[in-house]
Amino acid sequence: MRITTVGLDADDTLWHNETLFRMTHARFVALLEPHGDAATLEARLAEAEKRNLRLYGYGVKGFTLSMIETALELTDGEVSTRVIREILAAGREMLTEPVEPLPGVETALARLSEQYRLVLITKGDLLHQEQKLAASGLGDLFAAVEIVSEKDQGTYERVFARHGSGPEKSLMAGNSVKSDIIPALDAGAFAALIPYPLVWAHEAATAPHDHPRYKELASLADLPAWLEELEQ
Amino acid sequence: MRITTVGLDADDTLWHNETLFRMTHARFVALLEPHGDAATLEARLAEAEKRNLRLYGYGVKGFTLSMIETALELTDGEVSTRVIREILAAGREMLTEPVEPLPGVETALARLSEQYRLVLITKGDLLHQEQKLAASGLGDLFAAVEIVSEKDQGTYERVFARHGSGPEKSLMAGNSVKSDIIPALDAGAFAALIPYPLVWAHEAATAPHDHPRYKELASLADLPAWLEELEQ
Repeated sequence: MRITTVGLDADDTLWHNETLFRMTHARFVALLEPHGDAATLEARLAEAEKRNLRLYGYGVKGFTLSMIETALELTDGEVSTRVIREILAAGREMLTEPVEPLPGVETALARLSEQYRLVLITKGDLLHQEQKLAASGLGDLFAAVEIVSEKDQGTYERVFARHGSGPEKSLMAGNSVKSDIIPALDAGAFAALIPYPLVWAHEAATAPHDHPRYKELASLADLPAWLEELEQ
Repeated sequence: MRITTVGLDADDTLWHNETLFRMTHARFVALLEPHGDAATLEARLAEAEKRNLRLYGYGVKGFTLSMIETALELTDGEVSTRVIREILAAGREMLTEPVEPLPGVETALARLSEQYRLVLITKGDLLHQEQKLAASGLGDLFAAVEIVSEKDQGTYERVFARHGSGPEKSLMAGNSVKSDIIPALDAGAFAALIPYPLVWAHEAATAPHDHPRYKELASLADLPAWLEELEQ
């Protein structure tokens, strides 16, 4: 067997996530509408998110804090407490949103889990990612779960050594070129990009189209077929 | 060798943590002083923290959100935005506070690491715990780091199987009877309680004084001697 382990990203690979962030962005803009045009409000929030990434890391709690901070900044402290309340509520709703696997994901994972060791590899809030996996009903299909603060080459080397036979015998599948594809290829693994219609600005990067261990797939449902090809 | 692996809690075992939370509690009380006496303000904040634990998990970001929520509640939405700003700043300061190992910790860990596989086992924000370990300068002494959303019997079984020869050949050291001692003993490991002067209300529990694999130590500096005893 050429490949023994398949790593899978979670947000926007197994279930919707960025859509939820965009919807909350829109809610934020609506709340602060009297204080600026949509483009400015959007840009200020995105700036705060980026600036706070090193401090807060990934996930809904840090995003909620960035929304509150931006609301204070944009209004010179004149924001109404009703808006702060609404932002807190928006964050809570993101944390309790039902989790539905994307179309075809469950069938594809069930099929893959018969032949490969599946490892969930994701960034974000530890507790929230565990809760989403439990709510998705997909937890039993995974042999292991790795929630990490950053996805770099070292992360994939470590995870694929721990849960498999090393990166050379592993494949990573996800929607982010920057986090799921390039560092996994650099580690020596195969990598399948499964694009999601929306990409978070901080994750944008150019796909390594000519890399011999890389392929872009339309959906996770196409991954079993590519793995069969690779095994031949 | 009877024991191969030593698990260590981080907050209030290797470095101060609860003190920092208490100081921020005091800052919160001072900010909201016009809206209630200290005991009431304290109690309301503690309630919010407890209520939000399932949603936010452990760590500074969730604590900051709970402070903002409590400030809004306590004032019926009449809180000034200056106070919200101050709360955000207090959270940021907690996240960037310098991390100093507690007295004797570095020497004890250096000695233990010569004979045992050291594993850091801690709850809290993934990114923040990693940052604190890096800032403490203790990172190189650990063979592995496990940041978990809950410390129960299953957690210790899994971690000591993964990084050692199973719980029977492992010892857990920490300051929380509820999180570090009881579940580790239940898993079959040895457990050393190293009390910290302050205990978070949610972590209070009675120590299992008569358990044959349990010992209370005055400081981490006493752990090498107890391990020597156990090896005889």
